[in-house]
Amino acid sequence: MGNSAEQVHPVKAFGYAARDSSGHLSPFDFSRRETGEKDVQFEVKYCGICHSDLHFIKNDWGFSQYPVVPGHEIAGVVTEVGKSVTKFKVGDHVGVGCLVGSCRTCESCKDDLENHCQKVIQTYCGMNVDGTITYGGYSDIMVCDEHFVVRIPDSMKLEDAAPLLCAGITMYSPLKYFELGKPGKHIGVVGLGGLGHVGVKFAKALGAKVTVISTSPKKEKEALEHLGADSFLISTDPDQLQAAMGTLDGILDTVSAAHPILPLVGMLKTNGKLIQLGAPDKPLEIPVFPLLLGRKMIAGSGIGGLKETQEMLDFAAKHNITPDIEVISMDYVNTAMERLAKNDVKYRFVIDVANTLKTA
Amino acid sequence: MGNSAEQVHPVKAFGYAARDSSGHLSPFDFSRRETGEKDVQFEVKYCGICHSDLHFIKNDWGFSQYPVVPGHEIAGVVTEVGKSVTKFKVGDHVGVGCLVGSCRTCESCKDDLENHCQKVIQTYCGMNVDGTITYGGYSDIMVCDEHFVVRIPDSMKLEDAAPLLCAGITMYSPLKYFELGKPGKHIGVVGLGGLGHVGVKFAKALGAKVTVISTSPKKEKEALEHLGADSFLISTDPDQLQAAMGTLDGILDTVSAAHPILPLVGMLKTNGKLIQLGAPDKPLEIPVFPLLLGRKMIAGSGIGGLKETQEMLDFAAKHNITPDIEVISMDYVNTAMERLAKNDVKYRFVIDVANTLKTA
Repeated sequence: MGNSAEQVHPVKAFGYAARDSSGHLSPFDFSRRETGEKDVQFEVKYCGICHSDLHFIKNDWGFSQYPVVPGHEIAGVVTEVGKSVTKFKVGDHVGVGCLVGSCRTCESCKDDLENHCQKVIQTYCGMNVDGTITYGGYSDIMVCDEHFVVRIPDSMKLEDAAPLLCAGITMYSPLKYFELGKPGKHIGVVGLGGLGHVGVKFAKALGAKVTVISTSPKKEKEALEHLGADSFLISTDPDQLQAAMGTLDGILDTVSAAHPILPLVGMLKTNGKLIQLGAPDKPLEIPVFPLLLGRKMIAGSGIGGLKETQEMLDFAAKHNITPDIEVISMDYVNTAMERLAKNDVKYRFVIDVANTLKTA
Repeated sequence: MGNSAEQVHPVKAFGYAARDSSGHLSPFDFSRRETGEKDVQFEVKYCGICHSDLHFIKNDWGFSQYPVVPGHEIAGVVTEVGKSVTKFKVGDHVGVGCLVGSCRTCESCKDDLENHCQKVIQTYCGMNVDGTITYGGYSDIMVCDEHFVVRIPDSMKLEDAAPLLCAGITMYSPLKYFELGKPGKHIGVVGLGGLGHVGVKFAKALGAKVTVISTSPKKEKEALEHLGADSFLISTDPDQLQAAMGTLDGILDTVSAAHPILPLVGMLKTNGKLIQLGAPDKPLEIPVFPLLLGRKMIAGSGIGGLKETQEMLDFAAKHNITPDIEVISMDYVNTAMERLAKNDVKYRFVIDVANTLKTA
């Protein structure tokens, strides 16, 4: 299953890793490769905690490879560049999201959809071309081919940029691809967590009307007053569901837990689009007649390619879109994971890696 | 549930109707409304037998209203036009498909998607604005607002035109809307029946590469040599499925019986589209991960609006696309229904109404 990168590479690195499915994270010495011709090496300043990190450290999906150094919402400052690097120089603010490599030659790669390349290399628990396992951003340094590095605009704080590299692009990409994030469109956002809250902000900035759909009445004030949603709908209230039938051009569904899909399909207009961004364990049960009768679709979407990720960051900077974050120190990470499992965060933890990792 | 149209209208009509869920069709005297200002009256020459007709005469879907005069693939010759009719004159070749009315003011109607209007009036078992039940094309005459009448090109035989009014548009519309019917696209057509066989012809004429996907090896020769498909795939052969993974831009799935969806999703490329045209009784079970990982979609589609139906007929005439039909006399209709239930037809029955109804 690949070689450990603990000793094989020449550059010493230090981070936090889970060693088994307890998911407990603890200090971990390992190594990174030398900065290659096309590589950018950077000091990790901040790293967001994505819900996937929690799944990976606990091996919920069954394909984790320990030790797991999680983290794919990584923001930092360039410390070294390879001799063929053209996009970045030492001191630049940069980020790495969910992938650090792909084949660069397939149809997906040519279409700037490296995230859909069959040979994509995930930022952690992936396999490098040299057979070593990739380690993520809960660590002091990263090294990555410049193609998979994005530029963080000067006006954006690094801690704000970090969650955009996964949560941000996950919401921005379907708003663009499915033509939902534009004036005249009315969309629903299901679930107000790490994904949902930035989805509302992007959709509003792109000109759409936004209804937040939630099971939790206590989120209404937050959705309307803080996040700027236009309306709020309790998905367990039959009267509200009935009133919303056929009113939405699209729905971004961020909920991973099993939940009823048919009411969401009912809320769509003709040609409406239900986009699944979470991945429930169980298959969705979808009756076909409601799809036929309104030419409706159910699609999946996950992150985005590098070109679009850069576009998303530039758009966010221009429109002052930032995630709502709680910055934590590295020694709080295990507590943060416990809180995340209970959805006890508004809305994203970000680890202050540079200031707290060394002293942890 | 609406008034019977047996006596309420002034124009005498004659057809075949089912009186109960036995589905047996027998002679039936009824009436049609006078030709209104915007109406076209026409003599029915041919009427296709759609699989829906079989469901309706047997009340399989639970909302049939007896007597049922089926038929929504209707081709004929204009006999009278209302004083405000602008598109047609006496003697014109015309057709009526699945709908004879809609609100004309909603968003769907304004977008030329009358088929998705919430107040659509189905050609049979629907309710006219005067509260009478609509009767379909297994009858001697039709009367219909000109907006819902299409022109059959002079070069097209009326018996060939009939099945295009439902089966034809059902396949043409998704090929256009989902951008699958064009050069450079490789699509799959699942099921080679009334829908599937014209789907192959339209897709080829539109420039796509076509693979027929079937459970029946004996259809290979027909698909390749007669219908012009580029390749043929047995959907129950694991080796063939494996080889086809990730090769198709889209799939038109015409099968109504419950069947495995996951292998079809697997055959799609990134951004691939699985379009459901049949409506299985049971909900589809769809795992979300394969959708997420390839930004794939599952959509439904049913017939098309009037503008697109006319476009489809004109395209078919230009490219000499005709359905493969078996023309029958009206007194054979009950036998034809038995054969249809066993899929024993290549590929569409068409009733020679004008020559055989009176003498039945």
